[in-house]
Amino acid sequence: MSDKLILVVEDNPDHLELTVLTLEEHGVMAEIAVARDGAQALDYLFGRGSHAGRDTQRQPSFILLDMKLPKLSGLDVLRSVRSNPLTALVPVVMLTSSSEQSDIVACYQSGVNGFVRKPVDFADFTKKLDRLQAYWLDVNESIAAT
Amino acid sequence: MSDKLILVVEDNPDHLELTVLTLEEHGVMAEIAVARDGAQALDYLFGRGSHAGRDTQRQPSFILLDMKLPKLSGLDVLRSVRSNPLTALVPVVMLTSSSEQSDIVACYQSGVNGFVRKPVDFADFTKKLDRLQAYWLDVNESIAAT
Repeated sequence: MSDKLILVVEDNPDHLELTVLTLEEHGVMAEIAVARDGAQALDYLFGRGSHAGRDTQRQPSFILLDMKLPKLSGLDVLRSVRSNPLTALVPVVMLTSSSEQSDIVACYQSGVNGFVRKPVDFADFTKKLDRLQAYWLDVNESIAAT
Repeated sequence: MSDKLILVVEDNPDHLELTVLTLEEHGVMAEIAVARDGAQALDYLFGRGSHAGRDTQRQPSFILLDMKLPKLSGLDVLRSVRSNPLTALVPVVMLTSSSEQSDIVACYQSGVNGFVRKPVDFADFTKKLDRLQAYWLDVNESIAAT
């Protein structure tokens, strides 16, 4: 299977459902992996814990990463992703409900590829997710996707 | 004027016209600055040469950077952008007609935010540009844009 792979890291069940539905409805053949906290995300990416034995040469075309996560924050996950040769070049898009300017700065300093604020309104959120995936799935090239 | 600013760096006149037209038709209030080679791009960003005196605190929401440029390559421009505190956190999207996998690797290693291949067909190129700007202009947050 040469389908694209996307990793969604999200602990909010409503946001997770909305994100996965929007990705699935897009009609692109892509496998969507889900992690519900930062530790699970790293286990998946690095083939550890409950994901021991996963083919870690297969990395996502992009990672959709919520910033406020249990166990490890999105920023911690981003830094681990950037410092591991397996995932150092994988595009990461941070999603957050925060409106702190310092969060944007910290994410770009840590090598995030994109930074997106979650709107409170679900229709607005869906619209943003649509545009996000239309770019990151169909337009942007990553090492995994080619 | 608090409009968003976009810098387009492109030496191919046809590609430049198509890019600027697509950005303008998008209907977003954004100022589009144009540089036709890598040296001009850095002069604009750093307020040097013919752009001496420009307010360099005002940096683009994103830079659309052709990879194959006269004088300085897109990769050289990207590295200079990343190493200058004025522009280190400005999102950069590389555009290229090349299909070399090594180009993708080099760009991500040098801190590019996005990497997009230019299709040969102009209708396809317009469609990609539409999606590109729908994300980078309307969805992504950068330090300059907030």
